[in-house]
Amino acid sequence: MSVMWTVRVVGVGLVALSLSVELLGWLRRRLRPGRILNEVIFFPSEMACVEHIFAPSSPYSCVCPLSHGVETSFSRLLRHILSASSSLDLCVFAFSNMNLSRAVLALHSRGVTIRALVDKDYAAINGSQTGVLRKAGICVRYDVGSVYMHHKFAIVDGRLLVTGSLNWTLNAVQSNLENIMVTEEPELLQPFIKEFHRLWLRNNPALHLRSKDQKPGKN
Amino acid sequence: MSVMWTVRVVGVGLVALSLSVELLGWLRRRLRPGRILNEVIFFPSEMACVEHIFAPSSPYSCVCPLSHGVETSFSRLLRHILSASSSLDLCVFAFSNMNLSRAVLALHSRGVTIRALVDKDYAAINGSQTGVLRKAGICVRYDVGSVYMHHKFAIVDGRLLVTGSLNWTLNAVQSNLENIMVTEEPELLQPFIKEFHRLWLRNNPALHLRSKDQKPGKN
Repeated sequence: MSVMWTVRVVGVGLVALSLSVELLGWLRRRLRPGRILNEVIFFPSEMACVEHIFAPSSPYSCVCPLSHGVETSFSRLLRHILSASSSLDLCVFAFSNMNLSRAVLALHSRGVTIRALVDKDYAAINGSQTGVLRKAGICVRYDVGSVYMHHKFAIVDGRLLVTGSLNWTLNAVQSNLENIMVTEEPELLQPFIKEFHRLWLRNNPALHLRSKDQKPGKN
Repeated sequence: MSVMWTVRVVGVGLVALSLSVELLGWLRRRLRPGRILNEVIFFPSEMACVEHIFAPSSPYSCVCPLSHGVETSFSRLLRHILSASSSLDLCVFAFSNMNLSRAVLALHSRGVTIRALVDKDYAAINGSQTGVLRKAGICVRYDVGSVYMHHKFAIVDGRLLVTGSLNWTLNAVQSNLENIMVTEEPELLQPFIKEFHRLWLRNNPALHLRSKDQKPGKN
């Protein structure tokens, strides 16, 4: 009888254990806090005031004629960029959008480490924000090794990739058909982190100055 | 005693059921054939012959001076496009790359349904392949509702999204820093399918002809 009793206890114990494992696994899959973000945002964006995104504590302070408090494609992009708390790596062909520039400057003033890699030719055109960023003390590098540095991606805190067809210009945001995707998927994020690191090192101006000094013709 | 026996049988049955469910779930997660593809490809691509991709049955037939049998960024892009077996939806700003045009024509001749939506201004420039596609009987539409139709994406068989910064030009492939991502992730793929559908309908020339006919000034 005691054998029977042991079998029963072991049986019930195993049932309870198995059901608990299954239930915990199901709960973990449903409720995991680290559920991977994947989002696609299309442009052109509806035009709306974005002051409340820069100053969320006083959302009704702006009196401009645009709609207020509206969530648009552009406000979603701004929110993702402004979510940076430690670092923002930018690799953008064209950067002339003043609100995106303002967001980057705001992050810089909060102590977020910014690195910006831009196309050397586009950086020289009128309206480019790269001069503004440099004047504020942000480290900007110019790609010198290709015809166009045509990427348009940002890496937020090494955890979030923002990439797509959208250049950081006013036309792209307001007038063109464009897309960006925002993803935490490691298989997509990690190659971009690696590529940024490679391009950042390749375009270190100190390397170019040194290699110029070492040119045989100069010695 | 028979109650005891029933309890034992039910107990063992529940253990077996729970363990089987857990084991099957684990096996499904490990071995699922539909593991989601996520791939990032960077450009410029190494230059190499791509004849073996178009004619895999005779891989050594080409005598051009380029490297042969080399896997490059461009060959990977071509393979993804050529993997279409039922449909290819294209939404590209600039389409002048002759090898990509050749791939699309090859799919068309195999019976794959092609729909191409391009920018109206870029389509008019020298080197654009949209005329070649139209002459072959492929349905091409021109976006008329925005300043630039700046997307650069393709949807293969409604299951695979190819998108990024890369225009379908020779310069983009061979000279620029560019990226594409290739993904089956539904959260990224589905919005692009929906957007293509929306843009395809919006740019139906029959609608524009009809709306022109209905203009008050013409009546």
